Amino acid sequence: MQQLNIIKIGGNVIDDEKQLKLFIADFSKIKGKKILVHGGGKIATETGKKLGIEAKMLDGRRITDADTLKVVIMVYAGLINKNIVAQLQAKKCNAIGLTGADGNLIPAKRRKVKDIDYGFVGDIAHRQLPIANYQLLIDNNFTPVFCALTHDGKGNLLNTNADTIASVLSVGLSKYYNVNLVYCFEKTGVLRDINNDGSLIENISSREYLKLKKENIISGGMIPKLDNSFDAISKGVKYVYICQAGNILKVFNKNFVLRTRLSK
Amino acid sequence: MQQLNIIKIGGNVIDDEKQLKLFIADFSKIKGKKILVHGGGKIATETGKKLGIEAKMLDGRRITDADTLKVVIMVYAGLINKNIVAQLQAKKCNAIGLTGADGNLIPAKRRKVKDIDYGFVGDIAHRQLPIANYQLLIDNNFTPVFCALTHDGKGNLLNTNADTIASVLSVGLSKYYNVNLVYCFEKTGVLRDINNDGSLIENISSREYLKLKKENIISGGMIPKLDNSFDAISKGVKYVYICQAGNILKVFNKNFVLRTRLSK
Repeated sequence: MQQLNIIKIGGNVIDDEKQLKLFIADFSKIKGKKILVHGGGKIATETGKKLGIEAKMLDGRRITDADTLKVVIMVYAGLINKNIVAQLQAKKCNAIGLTGADGNLIPAKRRKVKDIDYGFVGDIAHRQLPIANYQLLIDNNFTPVFCALTHDGKGNLLNTNADTIASVLSVGLSKYYNVNLVYCFEKTGVLRDINNDGSLIENISSREYLKLKKENIISGGMIPKLDNSFDAISKGVKYVYICQAGNILKVFNKNFVLRTRLSK
Repeated sequence: MQQLNIIKIGGNVIDDEKQLKLFIADFSKIKGKKILVHGGGKIATETGKKLGIEAKMLDGRRITDADTLKVVIMVYAGLINKNIVAQLQAKKCNAIGLTGADGNLIPAKRRKVKDIDYGFVGDIAHRQLPIANYQLLIDNNFTPVFCALTHDGKGNLLNTNADTIASVLSVGLSKYYNVNLVYCFEKTGVLRDINNDGSLIENISSREYLKLKKENIISGGMIPKLDNSFDAISKGVKYVYICQAGNILKVFNKNFVLRTRLSK
């Protein structure tokens, strides 16, 4: 099987024009098959404010009502996505900007209301991906660039977490490609001590991860990220890398250790 | 050669939610290979206003400065394009929403400043289209949905007239497909008397067109539209249809005459 690198960048890269430019130059140089998944960043919130639509948050999650969805579609699928594509094309990377509605690439189900109505938010499953459509693009030298939108197949776009999209694509495609999943992150990787950049953990196996969790060395916000990563690994993804966007070109290099590599 | 229908809808359809919904249902039923090109409509102007960016017009043409470009990308490539795609997918049409930057599908040159600086506006040429990328999508059951944006290959998206995009795609692809180009229009077609809907001209050949122009039966705004259409025909497009969006399903029917058909 051929290698496929699926790379996710978040708001911290999107919001920083200079960093984004450097990342795009580096990403374009990654050889072989690749997919980019990008998050949103502050632009959606700022644009919403200007349009008189306040971001509604609950437990750190965005509530996507109809007006918020419009803003998110404009900013994620329009402004951010297409500017990344145009800049990648300038670097001779044959990027194609997509939501999950395009080519039905990420079918989703609107989240059911239990206690909280998250609005137009989609949940996705790796078994539902139309693999032939992915292969057609990936195997013909296109580089898909996904924003964090999926669709319900009934005509509605849905907001979906970009980390989740990257993970679900990685698992779904891992039967057909050797998939490396890369999360770009503020820190150089997973730290033993969040206040000490020198405390980077270079490699974590799933067994070591259980130990680190038990000893409370890994805690808080890193737990769902790493739980999801190891779940992806258990379902077929080869490695998950957590690194800084600026190190993306070096991360696959065997001798480069300024990242955290998660493995079986 | 197989038939390819390239259909352009304008702001009058986009701005009318009910009409757009009907059009999407009809478009999804058109058999065989097809491409949709859509214009902008009032939403871009309204969104710009809300964001404090006034539309700048000169001789009926939009001046696209950097701020206007941002709005246009958000509304054309985001809001309008992706909602059309999601709704087409709901009708089992395998739509994929694109700008000219995606897959480098519509390379353009930024218009040079002579008397007027139109800003980020792109001019395009049919010889520059990357045909293999089109074939890959069209021949594999994808339906490209283009908004009116191209790119300069240097990282900039450019605003380009949707009629022109439809025409250039038609000519460029006419060497590989039997192309019908359809312009959806407010009126049922070309009228002898603009105030009389009963004065529809059903068929016009290029020779008849010269006569109609000479006799001033066709004048004003219709002239550039028809000049461009006959230019496309002279370069290989089989037929150009001018019709109402509501008649799109019937327009290829031999017995249906509530449209104007332009031919060699």
